Amino acid sequence: MNRMKHIEWKDHCLYLLDQRLLPGEKRIVANETVADVCTMIRTLAVRGAPAISIAAAYAMVIAAERYTLADGDFGAYMNRNHDALAATRPTAVNLFWALDEMKKVWAKANAKEVPALLLAKAREIESDDICRCKTLSANGAALIPDHARILTHCNAGALATGGYGTALGIVRRGFEAGKVEMVYADETRPLLQGARLTAYELMEEGIPVTLITDNMAAHLMKQGKINMVITGADRIAANGDAANKIGTYGVAVLAAYHKIPFYITAPLSTFDLTISAGEDIMIEERDGDEVRAFQGVYAAPREVPVENPAFDVTPHTLITALITEKGIIRGNFAAGIKAQFEK
Amino acid sequence: MNRMKHIEWKDHCLYLLDQRLLPGEKRIVANETVADVCTMIRTLAVRGAPAISIAAAYAMVIAAERYTLADGDFGAYMNRNHDALAATRPTAVNLFWALDEMKKVWAKANAKEVPALLLAKAREIESDDICRCKTLSANGAALIPDHARILTHCNAGALATGGYGTALGIVRRGFEAGKVEMVYADETRPLLQGARLTAYELMEEGIPVTLITDNMAAHLMKQGKINMVITGADRIAANGDAANKIGTYGVAVLAAYHKIPFYITAPLSTFDLTISAGEDIMIEERDGDEVRAFQGVYAAPREVPVENPAFDVTPHTLITALITEKGIIRGNFAAGIKAQFEK
Repeated sequence: MNRMKHIEWKDHCLYLLDQRLLPGEKRIVANETVADVCTMIRTLAVRGAPAISIAAAYAMVIAAERYTLADGDFGAYMNRNHDALAATRPTAVNLFWALDEMKKVWAKANAKEVPALLLAKAREIESDDICRCKTLSANGAALIPDHARILTHCNAGALATGGYGTALGIVRRGFEAGKVEMVYADETRPLLQGARLTAYELMEEGIPVTLITDNMAAHLMKQGKINMVITGADRIAANGDAANKIGTYGVAVLAAYHKIPFYITAPLSTFDLTISAGEDIMIEERDGDEVRAFQGVYAAPREVPVENPAFDVTPHTLITALITEKGIIRGNFAAGIKAQFEK
Repeated sequence: MNRMKHIEWKDHCLYLLDQRLLPGEKRIVANETVADVCTMIRTLAVRGAPAISIAAAYAMVIAAERYTLADGDFGAYMNRNHDALAATRPTAVNLFWALDEMKKVWAKANAKEVPALLLAKAREIESDDICRCKTLSANGAALIPDHARILTHCNAGALATGGYGTALGIVRRGFEAGKVEMVYADETRPLLQGARLTAYELMEEGIPVTLITDNMAAHLMKQGKINMVITGADRIAANGDAANKIGTYGVAVLAAYHKIPFYITAPLSTFDLTISAGEDIMIEERDGDEVRAFQGVYAAPREVPVENPAFDVTPHTLITALITEKGIIRGNFAAGIKAQFEK
């Protein structure tokens, strides 16, 4: 995924690839205001827990650079922009983590030096993410068996991160080591990130991929076609319970039933130690038309009531191991997570 | 669903509702040849195991009525039409059952009297289906708990049958008895029969329905929102293993994990006692573009490899009970099925 940068800071402007149009169209959008970035995050034009944290970090640079005395008190102004970005999406914790990292910078510097300091910090968050993803990919690749036939859900690839990917980073490393025979990509309704993004990324990289609808995973598992499942996460509680794209929990139950190892991978910025267990993770409910239709084409009656939770929570008891940039966590998840934060 | 007949024999012609266009458009198509009917079955314009069996029965009336001496030997001609209809879809056994019922008629009568006899037989198959569906619906309704929140997959409603429905017939009877609080309809990718047909049918009947994507079912089960699952079937083996729309098996695993009763309902014409277990049921593989696109809108890269099994098999061990027009089968499924055929 080095052909085109999907997140790029250039000429005091944040350029973001509109991921909603993939794979059909590759449109880069210039974001000149914090409101622009908020809209792109809210509409999932940029998505993936690490990717939105990087976009939000650069948005705070935009805020600082555009500050004028007419905006009133600098701290209050920055807080308003911080809060607007934090309000875009509720589940992925990386967003709040990155905004907090940025706040540590602007809260203790003067308005004049802040833009340069924030830009340095945003660049650090971005390059740091790539570095963490590469490390966790190496860690995870060791778990891939020979002749791996891996199921993944949603998109935890280059596009969802700073450019290397979490779950798909691991897959790429495993493929380079000659261990990956096939990747099955759940299409991931309602927004089809699997069909649009994962299938696209893997094809671009020459990694064998087969697209299936979400409801085919069980049938393939029963046939013995899948021997490993790996997904990303949007927020992981202190006990290892993990929120990820809707459907992940069901895949975890199916994997357990078929005795297939089920892995979740994320950098430590995805962990939220203030939350003890998955029940307390806020789940975003999105517009019902995402379910009734796809890209404006309605399948269902327009008035039909809909539930549209964007995420679900997989309890740690269904997770074989968590894979981070600090290593593999198994068994006592709470202790393992705590230890990684203390390393 | 009495507003419009979706299968109607009139003026020597078979009128079928094109279910692919629902709920947006209600187009009735006149079928004047066997080839017309074959196309409508193959393209799922008419679908649902009992409904295609009725359509095929009327198609054999068309064959007999259109016979001329130029068609050569009558028996060979009828066999060709029989075989063309039998080749449309491989999984639902009702199709083969109905064609066999028709063959018993034309094989032992002379060409002149055959059309009238076949028409009587086709009408009998149709009215018999409605009668069987009503009886199994009454049987199944007894299993619905108070405050039922029922999940169903695909469409086993009026449109899938002669006009009453199997799984949705049971739901309707339970609703009339005041026991159904909510029906959750899986949208049922790739062809969205849940979103297009089940949601539509239930709304038309004033039964509360909530549409979800297939991958949300597990999350709703975990939240305690579902206390019963019921689906139809396309073929049931002698041991109770049941083929139904892709995704049914996964729902059955999820229901077992969450300790939710999982029922399958079908008339005895759906049972195939020549098949001892589910492994031997032929599963139809359909065109990959059904998965790559959503109602004609491509989501995935057009060249991405796809698997597209139209059905999966739920082992009887995951089925709480089978519901037929002869009663409820639990426990020893093989013995219970045998007993119903001997009644």
